[in-house]
Amino acid sequence: MSELRWDPLKLHWVIIATERGRRPRDFPVEAEAGVQTSCPFCYGNEDKTPREIFAIRPSGAPNTANWQVRVVPNKYPALRVEGELKSRGYGPYDVMDGIGAHEIIIETPDHDRGLADLAPAEITNVLKAYRARFLDLRQDRRLRYMVLFKNHGTRAGATLSHAHSQLIAVPLTPPVAATELRICREFYDAKDRCIFCDLIDFEISCGDRIVREFANYVIMTPYASCFPFELRLYPKRHSHDFALLGDGDLAELAVAMKEMLFRLKTVLKDPPYNFILHTAPPTQDRLGKPNYWTSIEYDYHWHIELVPRLTQIAGFEWGTGFFINPTSPEDAATFLRDAEV
Amino acid sequence: MSELRWDPLKLHWVIIATERGRRPRDFPVEAEAGVQTSCPFCYGNEDKTPREIFAIRPSGAPNTANWQVRVVPNKYPALRVEGELKSRGYGPYDVMDGIGAHEIIIETPDHDRGLADLAPAEITNVLKAYRARFLDLRQDRRLRYMVLFKNHGTRAGATLSHAHSQLIAVPLTPPVAATELRICREFYDAKDRCIFCDLIDFEISCGDRIVREFANYVIMTPYASCFPFELRLYPKRHSHDFALLGDGDLAELAVAMKEMLFRLKTVLKDPPYNFILHTAPPTQDRLGKPNYWTSIEYDYHWHIELVPRLTQIAGFEWGTGFFINPTSPEDAATFLRDAEV
Repeated sequence: MSELRWDPLKLHWVIIATERGRRPRDFPVEAEAGVQTSCPFCYGNEDKTPREIFAIRPSGAPNTANWQVRVVPNKYPALRVEGELKSRGYGPYDVMDGIGAHEIIIETPDHDRGLADLAPAEITNVLKAYRARFLDLRQDRRLRYMVLFKNHGTRAGATLSHAHSQLIAVPLTPPVAATELRICREFYDAKDRCIFCDLIDFEISCGDRIVREFANYVIMTPYASCFPFELRLYPKRHSHDFALLGDGDLAELAVAMKEMLFRLKTVLKDPPYNFILHTAPPTQDRLGKPNYWTSIEYDYHWHIELVPRLTQIAGFEWGTGFFINPTSPEDAATFLRDAEV
Repeated sequence: MSELRWDPLKLHWVIIATERGRRPRDFPVEAEAGVQTSCPFCYGNEDKTPREIFAIRPSGAPNTANWQVRVVPNKYPALRVEGELKSRGYGPYDVMDGIGAHEIIIETPDHDRGLADLAPAEITNVLKAYRARFLDLRQDRRLRYMVLFKNHGTRAGATLSHAHSQLIAVPLTPPVAATELRICREFYDAKDRCIFCDLIDFEISCGDRIVREFANYVIMTPYASCFPFELRLYPKRHSHDFALLGDGDLAELAVAMKEMLFRLKTVLKDPPYNFILHTAPPTQDRLGKPNYWTSIEYDYHWHIELVPRLTQIAGFEWGTGFFINPTSPEDAATFLRDAEV
C-alpha cells in the first residue's frame, strides 16, 4: 500500500506510491514516449483496463465498445479506495496509509484526437463525466479533496498519448488548495465579497490580459503568471462548485474550453500542458457533520488553471517557491488573442 | 526592468523577467540543447560575458584566461542590481521593481568536465567562490535572501552545458525559505533545540536512508522525498551558515559533494538534476538594524538539497502541492549506497 509521509520542515505530504512500479533499476531509462503496440484506451481493449466506473454509451453493456467517454480506475494508482484511514507518528515524522481514489477519464475512443480536436458536444460529455465522478466520490467521507487534472504530452507528465484526464481524491486538503480556500474565506469574512469576482471584474474592465470573453465565461492570462502563456478560465458569475452545473452550463463551458485548447494548440503548435480544475471541496467532515467549508458557496469561485510546459521548472523555482517567467502575461494574451485560428 | 508581481490568491511573488528575451514568437521553438559554436565560459572567451565579479586565478589580469573558477553577472539577468526598491499596488495586486542580483559561477575552464568530475581540490575552489559571493552580496541591504543553485542538464533547466552554478539574490524572503526558517524558529522557541539536528540524529541512528557518512557530513534520502533519488547533504554538527565555514570545512565538504555527485552520475547515468544550497539569510534589515533572523545561529542548519529530474512535475503536483513519488527513499538509499562506483 502507498504511504502518505509528512515533511515537518516543508509542511507538506508526499505520496510514496511504490505500486506505481518505478523500482530503482527502472531508472535511468527514459519514460515511455507513448509508442505502444496496443492502446488500452481504444475500442476493443476494454478488458485491458480495470472495470469501468462510469461511461457515456448510447447502448450496449459495460466494458464493451461503443462508449463515448469512459472512466476507469488507474491500473497503477497512487492511492487506493480499500482500507481504513490511519495516521501515526514515526520518529520526527508522520505517516498515513495511502487511501484515496485515482481514476482515468478517457475523453474519446479516437486514438488520434486530442481534447482540443473534439466537438463542443463531445467535450460536454467529458465534462458530464467529470461532474458525475465528483458527485460520486464526495459520498466517501474519508476523502477531503478531489483534484481533476489533465497531463497533455510527455513533457507534461503524460505516459499514454490517447486523450485522457485524471481524478485523484485525497484524504487531506492539499496545500495549494488549502491556501486558496483560506484566502477566499478571509477575504469574504472581511469584505462580504468573493475575491475571485473582484479579480475577474478588474481584469475585464482592464482588458490587458483577456484572451476571449463569452456570455458566461472568460479566458485570461493571470497577472502574476508563473509560466509563459499560463491561462485561467473563469465563470463570470459567482459559482463555487463545478459539480453543481446544469447540462446547459456544461455545454456553454465546452465551447469556451474548445476555444482555449484549440487556440493554444494552433498558436503554440500543440504544446505540452497541464490543466487543473479547482472546485469546492466536500462540506461534510468524516462524521458527516458540516465542516469548515460549509459557507464556501459564498466565498469560493471554481475555475480552470492551465499551464503550458514550454519552460523547465529549475533549481531556483524548486528551491524558493519564487518563479521567473520570461514572457509577460500581457504579451502572451495579445499574442493568443490576435492570432487567426 | 523586470517586475515582481504578487499573486493575492497563491500568496507568492513571480518575477516577470522580459529581459530574458522569450518573446511570444520565440515559442514553440525548443530550448537550445547546448550545441554551440563558441562557448562563452571557455578560456579565451572572457569578453563574451559581462566583466567578472570574482575569480580564483593564480596569476594574470581580470577577464583573461588562466582562471580556475570565475563569477560573472548573468548576461540575461532575472533581476538587476541597479535601482531603488519600490513597491506599489495595482488594482487587487502588488508590484515591485525587479531589484536583485543574478550571477553565474563558472566551475571549471574545462568545457567537458562536470562538477562531479572535478577533483575535491577543484570543488573546494568552487565552494570558496560561493562563500565569497554570499559574503559580498549580504552587504547590500536591499537584498533579503540569496539562493545558490545548480541546474545540470537541459531537462533540469540548464541552457549552457559548460559546468556552472547560479546565485540569485532577491529583495524578499521567498516562500519555501520563509516556511523553513519559521518552522526552525518555532521549534527552537518551544524546545531549545535545532529541528535539523533532531532529524539528522534520528536518521543516523535509524540508518535506512543514509547513503554515505563522513566525519562531519552525511548524505541521505529524505523520509518524505518528493522525487525519486532526492538527496540531502547535511553537516552533522550544528552550523547555521555556509558562508562562515573555514577553508578546512570547505575542503571536507568538497569530498562529500564529490562523493554525492559522482555516485549519482555513475549509478543513474548522469541524470539531470538541480541542487540548492539552503543557508541563513542576512540578519540585518534594510536600515541596518537586527531583524527577525538575528537568533538564527541557534535555530537554523544549513544544508544542500539535490533533486534528480527523472520524473516530470505534472498536473497533480502543480495543482495541489502534493507530490507522488514512485520510488521509496529507502530503496533509493540502498541502491545508491550499495552500488560500486
